[in-house]
Amino acid sequence: MRYELYYWPSIQGRGEFVRLALEQAGAAYVDVARAGSRGMRALMRWLDDESLEHPPFAPPYLKAGKLIIAQTANILLYLGARHRIAPANEGGRLWTHQLQLTIADFIGEVHDTHHPIASSLYYEDQKPAARRRAAEFRSERMPKYLGYFERVLERIPRGSRYLVGSKPTYADLSMFQVIAGLRYAFPRAMGRLMRDYPLLEALHGRVAALPRIAAYLRSKRRIAFNRQGIFRHYPELDDAPMRKDGP
Amino acid sequence: MRYELYYWPSIQGRGEFVRLALEQAGAAYVDVARAGSRGMRALMRWLDDESLEHPPFAPPYLKAGKLIIAQTANILLYLGARHRIAPANEGGRLWTHQLQLTIADFIGEVHDTHHPIASSLYYEDQKPAARRRAAEFRSERMPKYLGYFERVLERIPRGSRYLVGSKPTYADLSMFQVIAGLRYAFPRAMGRLMRDYPLLEALHGRVAALPRIAAYLRSKRRIAFNRQGIFRHYPELDDAPMRKDGP
Repeated sequence: MRYELYYWPSIQGRGEFVRLALEQAGAAYVDVARAGSRGMRALMRWLDDESLEHPPFAPPYLKAGKLIIAQTANILLYLGARHRIAPANEGGRLWTHQLQLTIADFIGEVHDTHHPIASSLYYEDQKPAARRRAAEFRSERMPKYLGYFERVLERIPRGSRYLVGSKPTYADLSMFQVIAGLRYAFPRAMGRLMRDYPLLEALHGRVAALPRIAAYLRSKRRIAFNRQGIFRHYPELDDAPMRKDGP
Repeated sequence: MRYELYYWPSIQGRGEFVRLALEQAGAAYVDVARAGSRGMRALMRWLDDESLEHPPFAPPYLKAGKLIIAQTANILLYLGARHRIAPANEGGRLWTHQLQLTIADFIGEVHDTHHPIASSLYYEDQKPAARRRAAEFRSERMPKYLGYFERVLERIPRGSRYLVGSKPTYADLSMFQVIAGLRYAFPRAMGRLMRDYPLLEALHGRVAALPRIAAYLRSKRRIAFNRQGIFRHYPELDDAPMRKDGP
């Protein structure tokens, strides 16, 4: 079976968490909206199709045989069970999903740093609120989330190297993507913060070096970060620049 | 096995979605932080316990035998499989979870109407941003989400009465709670909007009349809506009042 991924063609966005899982799984898939001019029409069609019994609310969604599965974490739950990128036992499966849902909350807060008032408005129309929200995000929320995942890594059994244990799961792939995205969006704040999270730093490198992920990151399938996605670099939302000449 | 639910004792909050599922399941559970003076200490202990291999990021969490499960939708996924409040087949299970994750996104946006800048700040310190965000929420997001769930109900097989089909699932219980909460928080906007969503209106009444839910809602176990929870009534965030004497 060849999966069909439906997601916006010009951003990493939430679709990237699914792309990373499909790549690490070595699954056959087509990224429909990037596969030609009919792709975008196909993407929009499912959103509007009145004959669809289980309509998605928004992209990404994955067509897997007769199933159409939406919501990023739900797609990963499905792929995890099929492709050994999550534990098979109930406790491990739930724990992996719990980590993913916490990552989803984190991502939602990243998005709202540049869109604190409404997704439907331009960033430029909500800049003062964005500055305030981003400042709180950098000082309170980033350390809270990153510190949490560092603690998770501190507690894995000796000899394990991934969030859930000895093998990489979709939660590790997502954590890699979050760190890469935060580095792009908040380079100064991340430069300051990541010194406190050596295990997360190592995890990021370890995932990037997984052979299938490394090949994907080098390929044209990997879209570059940009100012349309979740992770956006606006210098005014990052830490203030360091002064070069002292106080 | 008696479940232990850990959640803040004075609000419905995200814990309420778990409480409703436990009640409809007829499961034996103790709402730990409400069960006596040691309850809050117990709740905080799990958050800080360094010996815990799978620490929760935040309440609610559920102790089920040896498992400690956090993230509302993840807890419901677990309970759904055990207590027949979700379909047993894979497609139905994923669809129910997909609806729940969309409800979770909706709830996150409700919360941010009164806290658009930071959860750590008082509402009073983010009022202008809250007014703007709430206005966008009422005009764009509420109709988008409510319209989506109305469409889901339009497409269920003839003779079915719940979101996923003939039997109530945890997604129906959560949808009931969202409508009840929105009615409390935005009575004027909901009075205007709900006329367009007769199937959701009927679903709300149907869930409220389920014998176990009806008994729960009458009991002292049901905490009243208040201004500490997710759904908060601030008149200035609702529609403007109707003028009584014409234009």
